[in-house]
Amino acid sequence: MDGDGASSTGATPSEEINGTGNLMDFLDEPFPDVSTYEDFHTIDWLREKSRDTDRHRKITTKSRESYWELIKGLLDAWSGWVVMLLIGMLTGTLAGVIDLAVDWMTDLKEGVCLSAFYYSHEQCCWTSNETTFDDRDKCPQWQKWAELMTGNSEGAGAYVLNYFLYILWALLFSFLAVSLVRVFAPYACGSGIPEIKTILSGFIIRGYLGKWTLLIKTVTLVLAVSSGLSLGKEGPLVHVACCCGNLFCSLFSKYSKNEGKRREVLSAAAAAGVSVAFGAPIGGVLFSLEEVSYYFPLKTLWRSFFAALVAAFTLRAINPFGNSRLVLFYVEYHTPWYMAELVPFILLGVFGGLWGTLFIRGNIAWCRRRKTTLLGKYPVLEVIVITGITAVLAFPNPYTRRSTSELISELFNDCGALESSQLCDYVNNPNMSRPVDDIPDRPAGPGVYTALWQLALALVFKIVITIFTFGMKIPSGLFIPSMAVGAIAGRIVGIAVEQMAYHHHDWIIFKNWCRPGADCVTPGLYAMVGAAACLGGVTRMTVSLVVIMFELTGGLEYIVPLMAAAVTSKWVADAFGKEGIYESHIQLNGYPYLDVRDEFTHRTLATDVMRPRRSEPPLAVLTQDSTTVEDVETLIKDTDYNGFPVVVSRESERLIGFVQRRDLTLAIKTARQKQDGVVSSSVVYFTEDAPPAAEACDPQPLKLRRILNLSPFTVTDHTPMETVVDIFRKLGLRQCLVTRSGRLLGIITKKDVLRHMAQMMNQDPESIMFN
Amino acid sequence: MDGDGASSTGATPSEEINGTGNLMDFLDEPFPDVSTYEDFHTIDWLREKSRDTDRHRKITTKSRESYWELIKGLLDAWSGWVVMLLIGMLTGTLAGVIDLAVDWMTDLKEGVCLSAFYYSHEQCCWTSNETTFDDRDKCPQWQKWAELMTGNSEGAGAYVLNYFLYILWALLFSFLAVSLVRVFAPYACGSGIPEIKTILSGFIIRGYLGKWTLLIKTVTLVLAVSSGLSLGKEGPLVHVACCCGNLFCSLFSKYSKNEGKRREVLSAAAAAGVSVAFGAPIGGVLFSLEEVSYYFPLKTLWRSFFAALVAAFTLRAINPFGNSRLVLFYVEYHTPWYMAELVPFILLGVFGGLWGTLFIRGNIAWCRRRKTTLLGKYPVLEVIVITGITAVLAFPNPYTRRSTSELISELFNDCGALESSQLCDYVNNPNMSRPVDDIPDRPAGPGVYTALWQLALALVFKIVITIFTFGMKIPSGLFIPSMAVGAIAGRIVGIAVEQMAYHHHDWIIFKNWCRPGADCVTPGLYAMVGAAACLGGVTRMTVSLVVIMFELTGGLEYIVPLMAAAVTSKWVADAFGKEGIYESHIQLNGYPYLDVRDEFTHRTLATDVMRPRRSEPPLAVLTQDSTTVEDVETLIKDTDYNGFPVVVSRESERLIGFVQRRDLTLAIKTARQKQDGVVSSSVVYFTEDAPPAAEACDPQPLKLRRILNLSPFTVTDHTPMETVVDIFRKLGLRQCLVTRSGRLLGIITKKDVLRHMAQMMNQDPESIMFN
Repeated sequence: MDGDGASSTGATPSEEINGTGNLMDFLDEPFPDVSTYEDFHTIDWLREKSRDTDRHRKITTKSRESYWELIKGLLDAWSGWVVMLLIGMLTGTLAGVIDLAVDWMTDLKEGVCLSAFYYSHEQCCWTSNETTFDDRDKCPQWQKWAELMTGNSEGAGAYVLNYFLYILWALLFSFLAVSLVRVFAPYACGSGIPEIKTILSGFIIRGYLGKWTLLIKTVTLVLAVSSGLSLGKEGPLVHVACCCGNLFCSLFSKYSKNEGKRREVLSAAAAAGVSVAFGAPIGGVLFSLEEVSYYFPLKTLWRSFFAALVAAFTLRAINPFGNSRLVLFYVEYHTPWYMAELVPFILLGVFGGLWGTLFIRGNIAWCRRRKTTLLGKYPVLEVIVITGITAVLAFPNPYTRRSTSELISELFNDCGALESSQLCDYVNNPNMSRPVDDIPDRPAGPGVYTALWQLALALVFKIVITIFTFGMKIPSGLFIPSMAVGAIAGRIVGIAVEQMAYHHHDWIIFKNWCRPGADCVTPGLYAMVGAAACLGGVTRMTVSLVVIMFELTGGLEYIVPLMAAAVTSKWVADAFGKEGIYESHIQLNGYPYLDVRDEFTHRTLATDVMRPRRSEPPLAVLTQDSTTVEDVETLIKDTDYNGFPVVVSRESERLIGFVQRRDLTLAIKTARQKQDGVVSSSVVYFTEDAPPAAEACDPQPLKLRRILNLSPFTVTDHTPMETVVDIFRKLGLRQCLVTRSGRLLGIITKKDVLRHMAQMMNQDPESIMFN
Repeated sequence: MDGDGASSTGATPSEEINGTGNLMDFLDEPFPDVSTYEDFHTIDWLREKSRDTDRHRKITTKSRESYWELIKGLLDAWSGWVVMLLIGMLTGTLAGVIDLAVDWMTDLKEGVCLSAFYYSHEQCCWTSNETTFDDRDKCPQWQKWAELMTGNSEGAGAYVLNYFLYILWALLFSFLAVSLVRVFAPYACGSGIPEIKTILSGFIIRGYLGKWTLLIKTVTLVLAVSSGLSLGKEGPLVHVACCCGNLFCSLFSKYSKNEGKRREVLSAAAAAGVSVAFGAPIGGVLFSLEEVSYYFPLKTLWRSFFAALVAAFTLRAINPFGNSRLVLFYVEYHTPWYMAELVPFILLGVFGGLWGTLFIRGNIAWCRRRKTTLLGKYPVLEVIVITGITAVLAFPNPYTRRSTSELISELFNDCGALESSQLCDYVNNPNMSRPVDDIPDRPAGPGVYTALWQLALALVFKIVITIFTFGMKIPSGLFIPSMAVGAIAGRIVGIAVEQMAYHHHDWIIFKNWCRPGADCVTPGLYAMVGAAACLGGVTRMTVSLVVIMFELTGGLEYIVPLMAAAVTSKWVADAFGKEGIYESHIQLNGYPYLDVRDEFTHRTLATDVMRPRRSEPPLAVLTQDSTTVEDVETLIKDTDYNGFPVVVSRESERLIGFVQRRDLTLAIKTARQKQDGVVSSSVVYFTEDAPPAAEACDPQPLKLRRILNLSPFTVTDHTPMETVVDIFRKLGLRQCLVTRSGRLLGIITKKDVLRHMAQMMNQDPESIMFN
């Protein structure tokens, strides 16, 4: 039973080191694809890391040999930065192009620029001589479709024609988008963030970040956003950025051949994506760290930051918004906030949390329906129908007709003296003469009351339609629709508080901070707080959300309202279910994602989770010196495990190593082809020494120690599952063997862990509230 | 040999769970301090985590029993936020008090306010009627010492008297500081960050974060900074914040009884410390994440952010600088930077890197000298001498006489039209009439040239004196001195570039961006870039550094120059040695700190590192059923290991568990006192069942399975050391057992890992450049 004892101390350390080295050489060279993983499999982080260290070691050794190798080594060390630079530049460029194209195509639904058809409404009227904003919007070069076709810009006929063409364009855009996705790149649909989270956690989805996906997602994103559907471009931009990252990885073998290193680049690319989506580089890095990434070493933090900045500055150089501003929604408020306003802010937080819960539940229920019923078979029809409904309902309401980001931008805005928007239609007191930016509080005019009704309708419409839109087979992000819902609600609350303060200066709460004639409530700030709350409720972002919002305003002044709303929204939403929309979609799709944030607090032990269970047949194992080639082949054929433990003998079951299914298949195939005398009855040896008296026997033995992983990860059967979960999470394992005093008892795979966690979670939903 | 095999499947899972539960109960109750660690020992993160989960589980179970328990459970869940709030408030308050006290005492060296002695110079002249800044500085209420004592404010006699009193006050302050540290709290010296890093990585240093340290460090920090020594308050503020964190931990058993949870709070406290030091909450969180923390889960990120914000707003409420500003150095520049300026910025980066290297090498050499020679025996004398030298040299130069933060603030400033500083003494062209803030480039006046000489002298002085100051037995931070060195160098370079651009408008490089009459170079920006570069060179901070600087200016505009300088400085400094000042001090003091950033790339295996080595006696083990109480006691007496592996028998050496030395000692002691029949010859049983035929034998057996850790961490002897290092780092282990096919071969402790890493690093210094 101590059969391996005698030889165990025979090898010197250096021999053993070479042994590992040979193993690596063997893996690298004869079987070119032995290192790659199959589609929909999980990578082994530890192995990837050790492969990278090996590569690194080789370069270091070589670089001592000649100057040329030294330079090659330095180039290799620098390639990370080069990749970041390229990602930043391409992501920034693509974001700029998308912004420009969306602007033009959104306006195309309304009309066309006569001086140059490729101008958007704003660009078209840019050179107009009219002075006021209102007049400038009606510059003669820009013609609505009805005006162009019938020459008549007013009246019911023109309205109906414009309405009809609006719907037609919307349907055309969305039909094109869904068709392109269906035909060329099915992976281009959705927001992509759930899948990217899963990929970053170590899952392989081939083609998800491929060139076709990049191209089609970019094009269809423009079409989908322009079609006026209730969706945004932020999530898909992260996907596009990750596709760019993957593209540039393929230029450098350091990244293309190592799935672990590749994921470091992808984490940085995700940061660059958010950076251009909002113009918030620091927020982007924190988003990648908090929301998307799984393994985020400090090196990646620094590189992500670099990529995010390059992307942001590239976008600014393209200047798609024509205002040299980096941020999507630039806001500047003139009045501070008061402590008493925290009450409405927290209420907005509660609203955000409730909206998050409603949205996640509704959307998941609808997506499940799509998966299980006939609905899922007609994705094109679904998109057409939803687009039709959206366009029909959106056109009559000025707040839903325009693009959602324009809407948010208007809602965030403070009402300056020059503002011509309906929302700023206050009754001015002619007796007051004040500087332009210092507007005292005023009674609302008829325009504001009209706007309130329209906003309320827009709110209901957005809430309902977004639930059905997210998850269709077109690129769709939910940042913008969520923010829109929050901004509308926030603006309504803001106007209400403002008018209450105006009409009831004598109420105790208003007395201290809102004297007559003072500008004390900024409805735009309420809109921003509401947007943060709703986005927080849906995604459960915290720090990154606040930082993105902070970067929008650029002042620490408004961070407390934002934090209060974000925290409340998260707590309210968490009370109804721990998962954000991305985690819910990951679960819905059944991806093997081990969330870093889920805390496992149950008292189960490794022995409760490992396979084989009590009723199952024993574990499929190989022995170190008594299995024949035929046995191995039968085992491979009969089972679909990724690998097999190797034990000393079936009686003692003492574990000596683990062998990968792929390596085993390839090794036997090669041996049968190239090595004479290896037949079905050959004995497979995993031992260190040549088998004793092998020559005497007839069939040539097959020595496979080099493919044996001599350091499989083991835990004892008494290990608490929380420790096991921790180990899987932190070390990124694929599987772990369970032993008791050296005897192999079973195996736990990542899927077993996930299944067990899901089981335990369902058993005990009450524990949620204490986390 | 399979003696444990028969009984191994006898227990049902639930029994085994109870087994673990009993173990926990046992640990919690009979031996109150069994869970605490000894001083200068490493904690076991996995164990702490599992203890917390247990506590959590208990609360969840109890909370189902009654409403009262439910409320208690909810309070427990909220206690984390309460602690953060308290930490934020106390840290903010202390920082405000320190700022006010330092202001006053620094000015006390020069003179006193007649209207109220507790006013600083600025506060004293606040109400003065004089209009210009220059005149206001000379308000009648504020009197210099010479004026007060002799009535004569001018002349050589007054100068000498002021000089003398300046030195006297400096000596008094520093003597008080060093005496207080020596007598009451020796741990209050230094910056504290190296120790906090070590503590956060899981080391125990009792009293380092105690109440006395908090009190004495706060008081002596004020004294040390006021004495005019070349040191800053930023590092010590982090220490003070961590002391606050530790203080509030003791209010909640959730944190006080769990070393792992406590460290989460301390990480957040460190963020709050940096937040108040610079007025940069986001930068503080990133500093904690990047530089200080070891285990930083997402939950901590969010809480750190909260604590950092509360601290920043508390500080703002106290308003020590009297300007309602959050940040330490508020700057506002009016001109953009040009691409060509990147060349001087990168040169400043190189300077920063070189300064970092020089400082680290010089300071470490000096500190080593202090440790090994007689110098270390006279800390008070050392402080007195250095203070004397500093004061004598600092007084004559106006740039070193004032406090370092004032100096930095002036160097960062842009020269507006109202600026009265010597640095802004440009020759004005009377023909030009421009708005106040739009200053074109001008030739330097005599004041600027004088300032340049004085700054050059100040630079040399700061560089030399800082090397000797950092590490003395008083609280000392090096952020401010490092930034001062960089700001001086940067301002000198900035003025040089500015004058070059003015006098050579026709040079090709200036032609494009610097036309005559345009304001094209901001020397203050150079100072800021230089400060970032020097701070980066010393600490090797990257993202947090840029974010802190970004929060100072509040605009993304200047992030590229800052990044360029920070990256260059890091690369240059890294070329001379990977370690920043904190890591160097950790090494110097021999703390067991396993750096997350060091990559281990050598080909060694676990078998090369484990003990016993080939020549050493075999590992001290216990057997599961054949060791007597006497054997155990002898083993405990003869060795000083923290614990002992338990094996089936000495022949088979099959590992079944691990037992802690403390637990063993306590269990035997208790058994001998309370359990009848336990004598020296009693056999200690670690097996699950009662020992067979135990009653027949004379001495009563001692059953110790409940203190046996049945899930010790094991790796095989073939595991590459890089994997082992990764496991130690990510799981926070104290030790790991090495096995081969279930047989115990040896043990690897954290210290073995550190020793091995140090060995390998020394063997192969060349590999550094490729990381």
